[in-house]
Amino acid sequence: MSVSSSLAKLITEKRLEDLPSWTIHEAKRTLINMVGISLSASTSSGNDMLLSWIEKENASPRASIIGSSVRTSPFNAALMNGFLAHLQDYDDTHFPTVLHPTAPVWPAVFAASEDQNATGLQSLGSFVLGAEIACRLAMSVHPWHYDMGWHITGTTGVFGAVIGVGKILNLDNTTLNMAIGQAGTYASGIREVFGSHTKPMHATKAASNGLQSAYLATSGFTGADDIIGGRRGFWEVLSPNGHNKEILLNNFGDHWELKNNGLKPYANGVVSHPIQDAVIYLRNAHSIQPANVSAINARVHPLVLELMNRPEPQRGLEGKFSFQHCAAAALVDGAGHDAQFSDTKITEPLIANIRSKVNAQIDDSLGEDEVYISIVMNNGQTLEHHVKHATGSPENPMSDASLESKFRDLAGEVLNSSQVNKLLSTLWEIEKAPDLQEVTELMRVQ
Amino acid sequence: MSVSSSLAKLITEKRLEDLPSWTIHEAKRTLINMVGISLSASTSSGNDMLLSWIEKENASPRASIIGSSVRTSPFNAALMNGFLAHLQDYDDTHFPTVLHPTAPVWPAVFAASEDQNATGLQSLGSFVLGAEIACRLAMSVHPWHYDMGWHITGTTGVFGAVIGVGKILNLDNTTLNMAIGQAGTYASGIREVFGSHTKPMHATKAASNGLQSAYLATSGFTGADDIIGGRRGFWEVLSPNGHNKEILLNNFGDHWELKNNGLKPYANGVVSHPIQDAVIYLRNAHSIQPANVSAINARVHPLVLELMNRPEPQRGLEGKFSFQHCAAAALVDGAGHDAQFSDTKITEPLIANIRSKVNAQIDDSLGEDEVYISIVMNNGQTLEHHVKHATGSPENPMSDASLESKFRDLAGEVLNSSQVNKLLSTLWEIEKAPDLQEVTELMRVQ
Repeated sequence: MSVSSSLAKLITEKRLEDLPSWTIHEAKRTLINMVGISLSASTSSGNDMLLSWIEKENASPRASIIGSSVRTSPFNAALMNGFLAHLQDYDDTHFPTVLHPTAPVWPAVFAASEDQNATGLQSLGSFVLGAEIACRLAMSVHPWHYDMGWHITGTTGVFGAVIGVGKILNLDNTTLNMAIGQAGTYASGIREVFGSHTKPMHATKAASNGLQSAYLATSGFTGADDIIGGRRGFWEVLSPNGHNKEILLNNFGDHWELKNNGLKPYANGVVSHPIQDAVIYLRNAHSIQPANVSAINARVHPLVLELMNRPEPQRGLEGKFSFQHCAAAALVDGAGHDAQFSDTKITEPLIANIRSKVNAQIDDSLGEDEVYISIVMNNGQTLEHHVKHATGSPENPMSDASLESKFRDLAGEVLNSSQVNKLLSTLWEIEKAPDLQEVTELMRVQ
Repeated sequence: MSVSSSLAKLITEKRLEDLPSWTIHEAKRTLINMVGISLSASTSSGNDMLLSWIEKENASPRASIIGSSVRTSPFNAALMNGFLAHLQDYDDTHFPTVLHPTAPVWPAVFAASEDQNATGLQSLGSFVLGAEIACRLAMSVHPWHYDMGWHITGTTGVFGAVIGVGKILNLDNTTLNMAIGQAGTYASGIREVFGSHTKPMHATKAASNGLQSAYLATSGFTGADDIIGGRRGFWEVLSPNGHNKEILLNNFGDHWELKNNGLKPYANGVVSHPIQDAVIYLRNAHSIQPANVSAINARVHPLVLELMNRPEPQRGLEGKFSFQHCAAAALVDGAGHDAQFSDTKITEPLIANIRSKVNAQIDDSLGEDEVYISIVMNNGQTLEHHVKHATGSPENPMSDASLESKFRDLAGEVLNSSQVNKLLSTLWEIEKAPDLQEVTELMRVQ
């Protein structure tokens, strides 16, 4: 039995009603997080360009776009919502692999659910399975695949999307494998585009290609029999330096990688979150005035310098991958929402000045979500703080209350507070909804 | 200056009116070849499934689908026409790399041309530049990239598509580089899907993603600055075992890889083309009756046995990779169109009988496009023929007359002869057309 068909079998045999209730709750949290981010992102740069493209496509109105009154085909809705979900780099993170499972998977499942009149519970359960497989596949090629330069959110995300949509469409074993056998060959997305509008397109393409593959499979469209384990398959071609079959297939239903998926408190690359936690802690604890700071020194995990060493970002998007800017904005604004990464924010003299005072040294003994920060004041005083596990990490998950607060901040940018409340309470009850009609209406913005 | 921006500069500085006239003629030949194949493919298995998907998308009618009355968005037209162009494995081949440049590039250029009211000459010239860059980029990663398992038609094809469409949209340097910087990250397609409906989807995705990238770039959408040569760019990630920068950029405008692109006379694996040439030559020269043949003996290049030794193919698709079937069909039908590789053709008693009489011996001294054939008749007579270079190879290109004959056979499957004649003469004059309206109307099938 091929690796891909073994995987298909696990998925088709898993009944949604047997999923642990905490997984359904977690799926709801990721959905709330996505909707909040997407509403905020619906006003961001880039959004208008892709949305006009989709409006010009003018496809059949079968699925909704978050934060818009535009309805379009499930393919284009997955495209647009995937973009919104990842545009602010504010989505969730599977910590062991830095995969962002929601952005490629939920938009596909959501669009297919609306198109197929799936219940809220079917949507949640299908997301759980799709996201779990994306995470497991990511684990199976970690760290070789990401180290080669692949953006794992695009490459493994398309597998999550096809599986989630395949579950909504209730595909049988063989058909699901033919769907996976199409989707896997579209695995793409390289890290060179980080810092441009094209990074969120990786989620976009994963979501839409995964959805298309599942739909085409229903009409008999064929793909590879073993797109994962075959001689010229995903493992051999996209992770030639290594892979782990067991981690993909073993203990399915007992062990959940979804447990290692965390929600982000800051709208930027996850590796500098501990820095931001620590800076904001010290800022608030000591009422620091930025003008009185002479240096911010950090001892960091090596990935911080590998991924986010941009001392002089020129555009907002680059700021999201500049630990210097993240630290400066945390000190000055006490936050890391998307607003801290606008093009104008990047050029603010005070922020730029603080940015030039941020330094980092590698400490190989630290965890990826750990940091030691010392802030040196002009008067010579040094303030120190150690963050062992950043907020949103598996060891320190964001609470439901913090998630609500994040949601209110973000959704409140485009909806009034009564709309925000109604949408939030509907989302918390989504597993009881007969379909997604009510919730899609509440997230519509004229 | 980054590799990608150097490339963008070469393209934007090249004026279409300065292209050598033979390149425009070659572009016309590839277009005629594509239209013929696509008309025939419009009745093949797989076509109906993708076409219904596109009809259900119901996007704005701005571009035509070959062999159909459906009009759709340029994105979806590129998608569908890319599929048709590659579905029968009957398109062109860039011999040094086995890239098939037309299927990813022409459908994108054609759809954009129709949408933008480009002239025939603009379309032809834009194809020339897109195809040339796809071939050069393929050369720059050959043989490492294909050997890893990548289907080079999908991966380098998306670069050709974005460049061709970028030229139609008349993008400036910076914008074209931002278009390439999007498109390159969608490079995908692994060889594991060969033999399924998903293989031609590689051309489909390359064409549509390349087109979308160029269109989005016009609104300011950003990509990587050096998607080809960057640290996490195409070369490093998709060809880690080697690449050659010079072959991509040097002597642009003087040396043309397009010269090494050949049209296929037979809809099957290229290594048995010399066998088919020789058998058809003897069949016609000696008016051979298949029933009078006792053996067909061939001395062949080793690749024939390595890639195409299938004495008893069970399905049409397997027949395309059986030199025995190719030889038998050549003797009986005098042809190797897609019709010679149907499931029913495979089981015809006369064909099966001749197939059992086909033998091959390896001769290491022969070229890949060379063969010695002897046909032994029941009366003991032996007829011999040597093909030094198979038809369609760079040393023995298909003549315009043979191309016309191929076109008439294929287009004649869905159009009557007066329609075929009119379409053919319009295509031969396409460089004088003010737009593509007339030709798209002639290739419409109700």
